[in-house]
Amino acid sequence: MGPFPLSSAQSHIPLGEYIFKRIESLGVKSAFGVPGDFNLSLLEHIYSTKLKWYGGCNELNAGYAADGYARASHKFGVLITTYGVGSLSALNACCGAWSEFVPLLHIVGTTSTVQKSSGQLTHHVAPGKLISSKSDHHIYERLVERLACKIESLKSVDDAPEKIDFLIKEIMETKRPGYLFLPCDLVNIPVSALRLGDLDLYKPMEIRPIEYCDQLASLVLSKIYSSSAPCMLVDILTDRFELTNEVRALVRKTNIPNLSTFMGKSVLDETEVSYIGDYNGDASNKEVQQFVQTCDLVIHIGAFYNEVNSGKHTLYNGIHPESLIIMNHENIIIGSTKFDVSFVHILPKIVSNFNSSKLPQFTIPCMEHHIENKSSKVAITQSQLLSSLQNFIQPKDTIVVDTCSVMFGLPDLRFPKDVKLIGQHFYLSIGMALPCSFGVAVANREMGVDSRVILLEGDGSAQMTIQELSAFVRHGLSPLILLLNNHGYTVERAIKGAEKSYNDIMPDWKWTKLLDTFGGGSCTSSVRVHQAEALDQELASYQGSLKLIEIELDKLDTPWRFYFMCG
Amino acid sequence: MGPFPLSSAQSHIPLGEYIFKRIESLGVKSAFGVPGDFNLSLLEHIYSTKLKWYGGCNELNAGYAADGYARASHKFGVLITTYGVGSLSALNACCGAWSEFVPLLHIVGTTSTVQKSSGQLTHHVAPGKLISSKSDHHIYERLVERLACKIESLKSVDDAPEKIDFLIKEIMETKRPGYLFLPCDLVNIPVSALRLGDLDLYKPMEIRPIEYCDQLASLVLSKIYSSSAPCMLVDILTDRFELTNEVRALVRKTNIPNLSTFMGKSVLDETEVSYIGDYNGDASNKEVQQFVQTCDLVIHIGAFYNEVNSGKHTLYNGIHPESLIIMNHENIIIGSTKFDVSFVHILPKIVSNFNSSKLPQFTIPCMEHHIENKSSKVAITQSQLLSSLQNFIQPKDTIVVDTCSVMFGLPDLRFPKDVKLIGQHFYLSIGMALPCSFGVAVANREMGVDSRVILLEGDGSAQMTIQELSAFVRHGLSPLILLLNNHGYTVERAIKGAEKSYNDIMPDWKWTKLLDTFGGGSCTSSVRVHQAEALDQELASYQGSLKLIEIELDKLDTPWRFYFMCG
Ligand SMILES: Cc1ncc(C[n+]2csc(CCOP(=O)(O)OP(=O)(O)O)c2C)c(N)n1
Ligand SMILES: Cc1ncc(C[n+]2csc(CCOP(=O)(O)OP(=O)(O)O)c2C)c(N)n1
Repeated sequence: MGPFPLSSAQSHIPLGEYIFKRIESLGVKSAFGVPGDFNLSLLEHIYSTKLKWYGGCNELNAGYAADGYARASHKFGVLITTYGVGSLSALNACCGAWSEFVPLLHIVGTTSTVQKSSGQLTHHVAPGKLISSKSDHHIYERLVERLACKIESLKSVDDAPEKIDFLIKEIMETKRPGYLFLPCDLVNIPVSALRLGDLDLYKPMEIRPIEYCDQLASLVLSKIYSSSAPCMLVDILTDRFELTNEVRALVRKTNIPNLSTFMGKSVLDETEVSYIGDYNGDASNKEVQQFVQTCDLVIHIGAFYNEVNSGKHTLYNGIHPESLIIMNHENIIIGSTKFDVSFVHILPKIVSNFNSSKLPQFTIPCMEHHIENKSSKVAITQSQLLSSLQNFIQPKDTIVVDTCSVMFGLPDLRFPKDVKLIGQHFYLSIGMALPCSFGVAVANREMGVDSRVILLEGDGSAQMTIQELSAFVRHGLSPLILLLNNHGYTVERAIKGAEKSYNDIMPDWKWTKLLDTFGGGSCTSSVRVHQAEALDQELASYQGSLKLIEIELDKLDTPWRFYFMCG
Repeated sequence: MGPFPLSSAQSHIPLGEYIFKRIESLGVKSAFGVPGDFNLSLLEHIYSTKLKWYGGCNELNAGYAADGYARASHKFGVLITTYGVGSLSALNACCGAWSEFVPLLHIVGTTSTVQKSSGQLTHHVAPGKLISSKSDHHIYERLVERLACKIESLKSVDDAPEKIDFLIKEIMETKRPGYLFLPCDLVNIPVSALRLGDLDLYKPMEIRPIEYCDQLASLVLSKIYSSSAPCMLVDILTDRFELTNEVRALVRKTNIPNLSTFMGKSVLDETEVSYIGDYNGDASNKEVQQFVQTCDLVIHIGAFYNEVNSGKHTLYNGIHPESLIIMNHENIIIGSTKFDVSFVHILPKIVSNFNSSKLPQFTIPCMEHHIENKSSKVAITQSQLLSSLQNFIQPKDTIVVDTCSVMFGLPDLRFPKDVKLIGQHFYLSIGMALPCSFGVAVANREMGVDSRVILLEGDGSAQMTIQELSAFVRHGLSPLILLLNNHGYTVERAIKGAEKSYNDIMPDWKWTKLLDTFGGGSCTSSVRVHQAEALDQELASYQGSLKLIEIELDKLDTPWRFYFMCG
C-alpha cells in the first residue's frame, strides 16, 4: 500500500512538505508544539497534509502531550519547537520520554544556515562565556547529545530525505526521542519525493540469523519445560516494543502464572485466571511476594530494572539467579549467560514454537484480591479512593496517573480487560500527566478507540501544567479528571517535612472553577467531594462529557506501598 | 559589619545551614524553587535563617521569579530544584539569565554521593543509551556546562565552604548563573562556619594596576575633550554591572547628549534635558538616528551587541569607526584599539577624573517626543495603548514586559524619574514576564522600595506561565497586570501566517476570572476594556491592590518599530 503514488510532476517537493508527508506515511496524524520565528516556515507546510496541529500553551506541555500521543498510539510523537527558548522549555518532557522509552521526533526550527555559520548573536541563541567572540548556534544540539537516540542537524538539503528517514527509523526502533535541527532557510527548497514510496521504515534494521533466534527461543522453552513452578513477570518494555500481544498469547497458550511489575501494570490481561497480581519486590503484597519466591523459574519479560520498578532493588530477592530469565531489547539473560539479542526477535519465536505437550504440571495459586479498607470521617482515604476506582473502572479505560501518592496505590487495583495505565513511573516528573492525557485523548480519538480517559492528578502536580486543561475544551475532548486535593506535596511530606511550609502549595485555588475559566462551557462540569459516597455518585454520573471531580483527601494519608518506597 | 559573630560553640554548622547563612550574609533575603526528594534535607535548613522560601507552581516559573528577583534587587537570585525533573524544567529560565547577564545561584539537590558512585538507575536519573550499563548521575551537570559561569559539584564536604563562597563570588562577578550540585547526604554534615565572618565576597577578584586604569580613563576623557559633537549610548550591561549611578553622574557632570539602546531603556534618567531618546539603528525614530549619525564621538557604555539590540546589525551604521568608544565588562574599544579591561574599573575613574573646563561646546538638540496616534473603532490600537501608558506611568514604577508586540513599542515612551524597565529583550522567551514580575515584586517589597509593579503581558505569553498569578495572591503582592488580548501570537502573525491556525491560541479563556479562580478574594479586581477611554479610567482607578485589566487589541496591529525587526 503506497499512500503517495507520485506523478512525475510531484517528484520534487519542498523539504518541509517532505517531512510532514513522511510523518503522515507512517500513520501519525497529529503534531504538537508551539510556533516561533524559526519554525513558522516549516509549519506552513503542515497544511499540505492531513496532519493536525495541536498548539500547546507552552512547550513543556506540548512535549508531554506528544509523549502521551506516542504512548497511546504506539506510533511516535511529533513535537515542533523553536530553537532555545522552545526546545529547552520542552527538555524535561523529552528527557522523560528518553528515560522511559517513548519514541518522539522533536523538530527544532533553527536560525538559517547563513546565520549559523556567521556566528552572529541572534535572538534565542545563548552567547558563550564572552559575548565578544562568535556565538555557537549549535549549542542546543550539543546539549541534548546524551538524551537522544540520534541528532540530525541539517546543513543543506543534500540527502535530507534519507537522513530524515533514517532518523525516524532510529526513533521507531530504539523507542527513544531523536532530534531534527532544521535551519529555517532549508524548508522551502525542493527535494526528491521518491523515497516517500518506500514504506519499509517500520522494518527492523538489524536481525540476527533465524537459526540463532530459533536456538535461543528453544533454550528458553527448554527452561520452561523443565521447570516445575514457573512464572512470568511482565514489564513495561514489553508494551514499548510492541510485544504485548505476544506476551498475552504466551499467557493464554501456557497458562503460566503471570504478574505485572510496577511499571508493567496493564500490559497483562488481569482477568485471566493465571494472573496473580502486581509484584515489586519488598513493596509487594506479602502473598504475592511469597509466591514469586517459591517459583523455580521467573521469566522477566520487557525488563526495565531501576530503583522504583525493582522495589528499591529487592526485585530478585529470594530468587535463585539460575532460576531467572530476563529479557528486553538489549539482551536475553538466562541464568548466568547473557545473549546480546533483542527480545523483539526472540519472543515471537517462543510463542510460535511453544509445544503445550511439554509443559510441566503446575498449580495456579488463588490470590484473594482486596483493597485494605481504611475509612476516615474528615476526608476520603486513599484506600477508599482505590475502592471507588476499582468499582468504577471499565474495560478499555485509559488511566493516566501523575506522580502523586495514589500512583503508588494503583498496584492494588485489578483491571478489567484492555484497561491501559499510563504514567511516568520511573522518571517521576510531576505535572506530566495532565498534558500527557491530552495527547492520549487525541490518539484515542484518532484511532477510533472507544476508551474513556481518566486522569488522576495530585493538586501539586496539577498546578505545574494546569493551563493545558484548556486543550480539552478547545479540542472537544472529554476525559474524567480526578483532582486529588490533599493540600500540598503529600509524597514529599511522607519523606520529610510533613508539616513544613515548603511542602505547602497555594491553598486557595478554586479547582472547580478552572474548567469554566479556561473556556469550558455548559458541557463541562466540576464538583467537589469530601465523602466516599459522594465520590461514588459523581463517578457514576460521569457520562462522557468533560468533568472534573475535586476529591478532598487527608494531607498525610498515602497508600501503604508508598511507605516502603520512601523508607 | 559582621552579622554572624560566631561563638566557639557555633564554629561548626551543618553544610545546609552554611549555604543559607552565606546567602543571607550577602543581603539576599528570598529563595525560589520547588521541593523534591533530593533537596528536602537542604530545605530543612532554611528555617535556621530568615531567608523566605517562595515555592513556585513549577520550576520554570520559579526560575523566572529568581531571575526577576536578581534583576530588581541587584543582588543575585537563588533557585533550588531537584535533580533532573526539576533542574531541567528550569533550564530555559536559567539559559535566559545566562544570556542576559542575570546572576543566579541554582542549587540542585542530587542523589547521594553513594548513589552517584554506584551508578544505579535511581528515579529522575536519565539512563544512558543502554540501561544495562551503569548510569551517569553527573549527566545533568555536563548538560549545563556551557550555560554556567561555574559548576560546583560537591563530592564531599572537604573545602565545601570555600568552594561555595568561590562559586557565589564568580556568580556575582560575572553576573551569570552558576550551579551547585549538592548530594543529599552532605547537607547535614558539619562544616566550619568561620568563613561566614568574611564578607568580602563582593570585592572584585581581579583588578588592573591603578595607573593602567587611570591612563585608560584619561584616553577616553581626551577623546571627549577633543570632540565637538559627542553622545553617550547607554546599554543594559551598565545596569547589570551596577554602574547606573556612575553613568547618571557622568550625564549630569557633562551634559553630553545621551540615548538608550533598546535593552538599555530606563538606565538613564529620561527627564534630563540632555536625554535624546531611544536609539536602535535603523529601528529608531528618524530624527534620533540622524542625530547619532552627525555625532563625531559615540560612547557606547555597557554595550551588549546582538541582533535585537543593534537594530538588526545597523547600530553603528553611519558612524565612523574611529568615532566610536565601546565599553563593557569584557573590554574597552577606542576606535580600532581594544583594551582587555572591564568598564567596571574604568568608568568610575572617568567620572571622577572628568574636568568640566575641558569640555567642548556642543548643542543639545531638542527632540520632540510624541507617540504616533492611530485610532481604531474596533479595538484599542498599540499606539493608543502606548499613549495611555505614557500618561499613567509615575516615577519609580517598575514595568515588566513580556516578549509580546508592545515590547517593541516601549522605546516610544519617555519615562518619568526612576522608572525601571525589565524584560528579556534579547533572549525573548515568552511567558517569562509574569513569574519574573513576581520575583520583582518580592525584591521591591524586601528592599522597602515604594514602586508600583506594572506587568505587560500578551495573551500568548501569559498562557505559558499563567498559574503563577496565584503567587501574587498567596503572598499579598499587588501588581497591575495589563493583559493584552490580541487573540494569539501577533508577533508571529506579523512575520508569517497572519491568519494561520498555528498562530491562534485557545480563544475562550475568561481572563478576568483567573485571579478569582487562583484564589484572589475581594481585594483583587479584573476588568475587560475595548476602548481607550475605558482603559484610561481603569488605569486611573488602580489604587495599588492586585488588578488585572484585559485590553482588547486588534489581532494584526503592532508598533511601527516591530515591522523593522521582522522585515
Ligand atoms: C517536576 C518535578 N518537580 C518536583 C518533583 C518532586 N515531587 C515528587 S512528588 C511531589 C509532590 C506531588 O504532589 P501532589 O501532586 O499534590 O501529589 P501528592 O503527593 O500530594 O499525593 C513532588 C514535589 C518532581 N517529581 N517533579
Ligand atoms: C518560549 C517561547 N516559545 C515561543 C516563542 C516564539 N514567540 C515569540 S513572540 C510569540 C507570540 C507572543 O504572543 P503574545 O504574548 O500574545 O503577544 P503578541 O505577539 O500577540 O503581542 C511567540 C510564540 C518564544 N519567543 N518563546
